Amino acid sequence: MEKQGLLYEGKAKRIYSTENNEEVWVEYKDSATAFNGEKKAEIGGKGVLNNEISSLLFSRLKEKGIESHFIKRISAHEQLVKKVDIIPLEVVVRNVAAGSLAKRLGLEEGTALRHSIVEFYYKDDDLGDPLLTDAHIELLELASREEVELLKIQGLKVDSVLTEIFEEAGIKLIDFKLEFGKDSEGNIMLADEISPDTCRLWDIETNQKLDKDVFRRDLGNLTDVYSIILERLGGKEACTK
Amino acid sequence: MEKQGLLYEGKAKRIYSTENNEEVWVEYKDSATAFNGEKKAEIGGKGVLNNEISSLLFSRLKEKGIESHFIKRISAHEQLVKKVDIIPLEVVVRNVAAGSLAKRLGLEEGTALRHSIVEFYYKDDDLGDPLLTDAHIELLELASREEVELLKIQGLKVDSVLTEIFEEAGIKLIDFKLEFGKDSEGNIMLADEISPDTCRLWDIETNQKLDKDVFRRDLGNLTDVYSIILERLGGKEACTK
Ligand SMILES: Nc1ncnc2c1ncn2[C@@H]1O[C@H](COP(=O)(O)OP(=O)(O)O)[C@@H](O)[C@H]1O
Ligand SMILES: Nc1ncnc2c1ncn2[C@@H]1O[C@H](COP(=O)(O)OP(=O)(O)O)[C@@H](O)[C@H]1O
Ligand SMILES: [Mg+2]
Ligand SMILES: [Mg+2]
Repeated sequence: MEKQGLLYEGKAKRIYSTENNEEVWVEYKDSATAFNGEKKAEIGGKGVLNNEISSLLFSRLKEKGIESHFIKRISAHEQLVKKVDIIPLEVVVRNVAAGSLAKRLGLEEGTALRHSIVEFYYKDDDLGDPLLTDAHIELLELASREEVELLKIQGLKVDSVLTEIFEEAGIKLIDFKLEFGKDSEGNIMLADEISPDTCRLWDIETNQKLDKDVFRRDLGNLTDVYSIILERLGGKEACTK
Repeated sequence: MEKQGLLYEGKAKRIYSTENNEEVWVEYKDSATAFNGEKKAEIGGKGVLNNEISSLLFSRLKEKGIESHFIKRISAHEQLVKKVDIIPLEVVVRNVAAGSLAKRLGLEEGTALRHSIVEFYYKDDDLGDPLLTDAHIELLELASREEVELLKIQGLKVDSVLTEIFEEAGIKLIDFKLEFGKDSEGNIMLADEISPDTCRLWDIETNQKLDKDVFRRDLGNLTDVYSIILERLGGKEACTK
């Protein structure tokens, strides 16, 4: 298995082709970005931490019956994954009001939601990743009605498994963003990453923020809190084996 | 029938109680506001025009089988309507991309939508009337799932009738906002107003804007274009009879 040409460079990862047309090589970068790229920094160690956490979480999800694009961790900051065509929707699942939801609905950050909700945002940096309703998704033909229902169900399934995994680690899963894609046979599959970059994670006792909000809101050292997440989840051993 | 105490003063209308607890007296003001109240002006004649246009449209809708709160026009700037508890949702129906939809989805203003869509906005000035998904509406308990479906269906019904009325008048109905309320028996009913304040209306030939965008975007004299709408719809006769 060898890394070939760079297919795509995003804000947090580089995607390379491999000799297998169904698989791509993902390199986690040390870049941190927020507010649609307005705030940026290079943070040494971030890529390694996110690669480890993401590998570990995809492995745990698989144990619980949730498939994803994840094949294996290749090196400290690299993964091999199934190649998919990403559906341009950010699937956001929320258990507790925070961030844009708290602002939109006038809820105090930290308010538990009566039930978890799924939101869709248009994955389009130029438009600022706007919130979409089902009607918008249908209009833009970003996904069929059935696919949208499937994404909602999958989002809630991932939520219940992740909530349990984090709870056992003393962490509250506030909300998170997923991406899905279609493999060469058209199967919809969980893809991208699951890391403190894409989840809001609060200490279950103190509510300390252990996620990218530390960077967004200048609350401390990002790799310190990402290391706490990795450790509490069972650390390196779990994903290098 | 007499006007009694002021129940509520909004940006465009004043609502007064009457001796009948099931009816309220609506006074259309000359105030124009845009961008959630940031831009304001007093425009002589606007109240009278909107009262006439709104009375006329509610009457036409009734002829086509769509009930509303409208009982009768009382004077040049006043109406008698059924009192309802307003559901705090702005029900927006769109036929052509314009305004916030064009911006949100990156569509050029004027692009016909493949099919008409219904959107819901939270009627809350402090929050800036944010877009809501069905999940948000359920979470905030603003309306039940069945009520949301009913509002969508009613919105599209009003759209097809209004589109025809305006088309016959040489006007393209681009989009519009409706409000619904519950009467004392819990029946959901079309309420508020339908006027160039709440619709986007373009000349069918020239695309000249004949609605509140004239005020929002400083495109000319507002009462001139509102008068064109009234005239083309058949004017005063229709609603003073
Ligand atoms: N399995 C996969 N196959 C192909 N592309 C993927 C896969 N998983 C994630 N991607 C895409 O890789 C790109 C790089 O990721 P990232 O740096 O997070 O990008 P972005 O700046 O869009 O957030 C993204 O467009 C992401 O959707
Ligand atoms: N039939 C009705 N019964 C009671 N209230 C109504 C009725 N129709 C409209 N309203 C309400 O009257 C208020 C005044 O209207 P308006 O000036 O347009 O207010 P706003 O500033 O909220 O747009 C609004 O809150 C509107 O929802
Ligand atoms: Mg990303
Ligand atoms: Mg109003």
